[in-house]
Amino acid sequence: MKSKRNVYLKMKTLKQAREILFERFSMFGTLSNERVSVPDAVGRVLAEPVTAKISAPNFHAAAMDGIAVKAENTFGASEARPKELIVGRDAFYINTGNVIPENTNAVIMIEHINVLDENRIEIEAPAFPWQYIRKMGEDIVATELLFPQNHLVTPYCVGALLSGGVFTVSVRKKPKLLIIPTGSELVEWRDTKLENLKPGQVVESNSFVLGKLAEACGATYIRHEILTDNVEKIRQAVDDAAHSDFDIILIDGGSSAGSEDYSKQVISDLGETLVHGVTMMPGKPLIIGEIKNKPVLGIPGYPVSAIISFEQFVRPLICRALGQPDIEPQKTEVQPIRKIASKLGVEEFLRVKLGKVGDRVVATPLPRGSGSITSITEADGIIRIPNHVEGLKDKEPVFAELLRPLSSVQNTIVVVGSHDNTLDILADELKAKHSNLKVSSSHVGSMGGLMAIKRGVCHLAGSHLLDTEDGSYNISYIRRYLPDTKVKLVNLVFRDQGLIVSPGNPKNIRGIEDLGREDIMFINRQAGSGTRILLDYRLRQLGMDSGSITGYENEEFTHMSVAVSVLSGMADAGLGIYAAAKALHLDFIPVVTEQYDLVIPQEHFDSDNIRILLETINTGEFKKRVQALGGYSTEKTGTVVSD
Amino acid sequence: MKSKRNVYLKMKTLKQAREILFERFSMFGTLSNERVSVPDAVGRVLAEPVTAKISAPNFHAAAMDGIAVKAENTFGASEARPKELIVGRDAFYINTGNVIPENTNAVIMIEHINVLDENRIEIEAPAFPWQYIRKMGEDIVATELLFPQNHLVTPYCVGALLSGGVFTVSVRKKPKLLIIPTGSELVEWRDTKLENLKPGQVVESNSFVLGKLAEACGATYIRHEILTDNVEKIRQAVDDAAHSDFDIILIDGGSSAGSEDYSKQVISDLGETLVHGVTMMPGKPLIIGEIKNKPVLGIPGYPVSAIISFEQFVRPLICRALGQPDIEPQKTEVQPIRKIASKLGVEEFLRVKLGKVGDRVVATPLPRGSGSITSITEADGIIRIPNHVEGLKDKEPVFAELLRPLSSVQNTIVVVGSHDNTLDILADELKAKHSNLKVSSSHVGSMGGLMAIKRGVCHLAGSHLLDTEDGSYNISYIRRYLPDTKVKLVNLVFRDQGLIVSPGNPKNIRGIEDLGREDIMFINRQAGSGTRILLDYRLRQLGMDSGSITGYENEEFTHMSVAVSVLSGMADAGLGIYAAAKALHLDFIPVVTEQYDLVIPQEHFDSDNIRILLETINTGEFKKRVQALGGYSTEKTGTVVSD
Repeated sequence: MKSKRNVYLKMKTLKQAREILFERFSMFGTLSNERVSVPDAVGRVLAEPVTAKISAPNFHAAAMDGIAVKAENTFGASEARPKELIVGRDAFYINTGNVIPENTNAVIMIEHINVLDENRIEIEAPAFPWQYIRKMGEDIVATELLFPQNHLVTPYCVGALLSGGVFTVSVRKKPKLLIIPTGSELVEWRDTKLENLKPGQVVESNSFVLGKLAEACGATYIRHEILTDNVEKIRQAVDDAAHSDFDIILIDGGSSAGSEDYSKQVISDLGETLVHGVTMMPGKPLIIGEIKNKPVLGIPGYPVSAIISFEQFVRPLICRALGQPDIEPQKTEVQPIRKIASKLGVEEFLRVKLGKVGDRVVATPLPRGSGSITSITEADGIIRIPNHVEGLKDKEPVFAELLRPLSSVQNTIVVVGSHDNTLDILADELKAKHSNLKVSSSHVGSMGGLMAIKRGVCHLAGSHLLDTEDGSYNISYIRRYLPDTKVKLVNLVFRDQGLIVSPGNPKNIRGIEDLGREDIMFINRQAGSGTRILLDYRLRQLGMDSGSITGYENEEFTHMSVAVSVLSGMADAGLGIYAAAKALHLDFIPVVTEQYDLVIPQEHFDSDNIRILLETINTGEFKKRVQALGGYSTEKTGTVVSD
Repeated sequence: MKSKRNVYLKMKTLKQAREILFERFSMFGTLSNERVSVPDAVGRVLAEPVTAKISAPNFHAAAMDGIAVKAENTFGASEARPKELIVGRDAFYINTGNVIPENTNAVIMIEHINVLDENRIEIEAPAFPWQYIRKMGEDIVATELLFPQNHLVTPYCVGALLSGGVFTVSVRKKPKLLIIPTGSELVEWRDTKLENLKPGQVVESNSFVLGKLAEACGATYIRHEILTDNVEKIRQAVDDAAHSDFDIILIDGGSSAGSEDYSKQVISDLGETLVHGVTMMPGKPLIIGEIKNKPVLGIPGYPVSAIISFEQFVRPLICRALGQPDIEPQKTEVQPIRKIASKLGVEEFLRVKLGKVGDRVVATPLPRGSGSITSITEADGIIRIPNHVEGLKDKEPVFAELLRPLSSVQNTIVVVGSHDNTLDILADELKAKHSNLKVSSSHVGSMGGLMAIKRGVCHLAGSHLLDTEDGSYNISYIRRYLPDTKVKLVNLVFRDQGLIVSPGNPKNIRGIEDLGREDIMFINRQAGSGTRILLDYRLRQLGMDSGSITGYENEEFTHMSVAVSVLSGMADAGLGIYAAAKALHLDFIPVVTEQYDLVIPQEHFDSDNIRILLETINTGEFKKRVQALGGYSTEKTGTVVSD
């Protein structure tokens, strides 16, 4: 099974690799042009400077409703000595936009004339020459430049072009991409029945993501059918593409150095490999090549790698082909909520959630793996950590490139703390009625939530910390860990915690006491989570030693991950909420009903966003949806349990 | 001719009018939904929350190329005591993305194994459990919320949806607009031959501008054919539309209170007029109405009024119908280059050009008339001057809403001063090679340019100021007016100035000395322009009194406007450059060849942008295009004439 492996050429930095690409394809921008009607030109790029064919207005026009007069005939008119004008001789009724009659050079507003009879009017003030007249060419003069070449046509431009007598324009042709998805594991979504999906099969999605990204920056794409990891087939497809009218060819997948990675071989066979491997993360296994003078890129198969590769290499190529500047993301200063180490010698694109808490924008890192598509769909921004930097400090502001408008970041409610499935329902209900608001949750456990409040990096925290002395929840922890912070405690739900086990409970687990059995593999929650505290409390009550539990050291961060561990057979049991077990059709052995509250610092409690959030929690819709999950009680939902 | 006139209802403020509109149509957001494939959902809005159907990965997968092992079997391996594993029993070759074989729980990278033979390998370090494995559900857990309702689908989202087993989604239907252009003066561009266009006829463009703006925010539009100002026809069209499947109806034109403005009458007859007249500028004559529970808006006919009305009223309505927040323009702090008075009681949308000069973004106001479409196509931003404010002070920073990205504003070269047609060619040549750069010219005359440099609100100024003592250009003025500013003087062109007269010179004008003739109407340039200084100098030389010249007090700001005045018959002669006369096929009587320079402060001279601008001036392409205009000499073009 082990066969020939490629070897990376000397890796290039992102900057070097981009320079190599842009230098080699500097003839871009010479793609051919096409003529389109002006309304159809919106979103397209002018291939030539466009000059006006006619003036606008194309005549002297009335700018008001009223009468047209020769200004000189009105001189001397005053309230004391009004001047009479004969309609049809000295004065001509006229509406806005009408042509000024010959021998007139001013308009008097209708409101300022006294009508004496059908033929005579009176004015009480003189008109000065050219008053209320839009002079010919006032807006656009024939022959003048309307827009330079490489100008991106907007809806507004349509008005200026048509008004200037320009009805068709020459625009740059859209660069045409071929995207070839490769990989024996890939299946077409159109052909997929989920129930038949086999382990190891993956629904192909990158080609659509890349294609839609290409469309968004002005290109078109054709998607090749999925190719298995068959070097001959891939070679044939790339060769065909190089000989047809595609401007850029992307081979998606197989760009790495594995035994079944053929992109490099194909590109080298048919043309030249210019770069293999870029010191960036995600996106390291990128290939830049040239076949028949066309750029051919080997795009890594991991989704975030594919996206970063596209945005760093393919998009600028498209922009150049269209005579457009690279798309520069808006940047804003943010503060990472914690220290983040990063590898020296690699430029990392760290995806972060952003939210404005107080007067700072705080950045919460998302999973860093290239395979996590949700790490970019959930991201509000990207922090670039350069090659020579070892990471971010937690108090030092850095710049983030924004993936959403700053206004969205400013309207994000940052929730950090314990994980609960009802937070998703809350996010959805909020978005239903208040589409400008967003809830961004990070799951770091209840203690992590309190610490986030202490450091001022969230608006509120979800918490279910059991005081094992008196059976109360959260209050004593807040007193201990947030002595100087005034907070309000609002109940979100009561919920059932218990053991999540395989359907039918094949190992016949009856409770916590069985976790010490040798045949049971446990999956734990991270230290500092309320669930972990609950477990440890129960173990102490039962006099059990955590060392006796197999898998105690294996930690997950959410209830759903615990449930997945059980579902996949990685573990036999884990402590978690009923909703997680139910979602994945697992069995559930109740252990305790616990109180899950929102801890809200007073300084945020009165803000508009939090007020709306609390209103939403108190709606019947929210409570109904929570109850439908099962394992929840909403009796005290939305009530302030302590302040 | 004078007939019944409408009367405005009590005018509303912008805020009041918006509240009335949004309150009346608060049921928006209940438009119907449709199901589309996930790739086709990009740019659409989710009508329902979307949860994952499968996990991603849907199995435990290798995250690296290597061998899959049971971690426990590797414990104890070290460099000193390597551990041997049997391929096919203890170790299984595996590529990235492959399913982890049963009874294995870790992957060792291919780089870290020693192959002993086909069946045996050796490792020198232990594997910890789950290393280099992407666990089932690591990215997406089945049943979890992927995106809430009202989420706008991006290309990235396609990846998460397909990976989560979601292949089709329910999205909000695009709101459907009918746009009815009305006005007897309007003609269809498709039917228009420019040479047959009669004075008073106007090429209809608003409907396309509004339609394309509607498309840009997620709606679709149907354009009605142009209707003349015929109340019956308009009534019929609006009634038909109200009875069909349109969601929003726009009547463009005829919204004011003139004798041929029928929109209000039609809306009131068929339904109810809620607002007529809004205290904003442009856009005052807006009508908000309701027919059959549908919003029907009377949109003013002036192009900028139409655009502002759309963006303030129609776009938010579309956003609401799509469950989207209003589009919030990015704002930036700018400094107006001069004091700007504004009317109390009216909210003005002042269009401005923006450019970064030094560390400030300076704002140059564009023409304020609602009829000037170029005032919005050329604008980089809009300064909103509230009802209760009488205007802007010149040194006081204000916020501008951006119409282009800030990066574009930062790459704008701000040219203020004398007008010359070659500046357009320069702008075009620059954009051809450096699409990220923009030239923004404001024409305030040569002296205005020097004053702009003095106040630090431009990067360079065009100037042709004749020293009437020694015949030199610019240098003595710079010494006098910019004593403390170090500047470089670069020649742009030498150019012919002369009298622009009608074709065939019907009044037989031979030179400046004829301007005193009683039968000649002159058109002048504004005080402070180099051309005005030249004229006054010549008049003194000739011993002529400016009072003897009819039209001396009529001023235009550019050579092209002077030429238009002659073309339109408003004037018989004006002093201007040959290029302007030639462009409009007018005759030209040479008076003088003059030097036109660029005055560049030293602090900007060495910047990248100015360097590129000067390089462009020195290219053969630029000089050739300038020569083709006629009346120019490029002998010294691009040379530093003084520093």
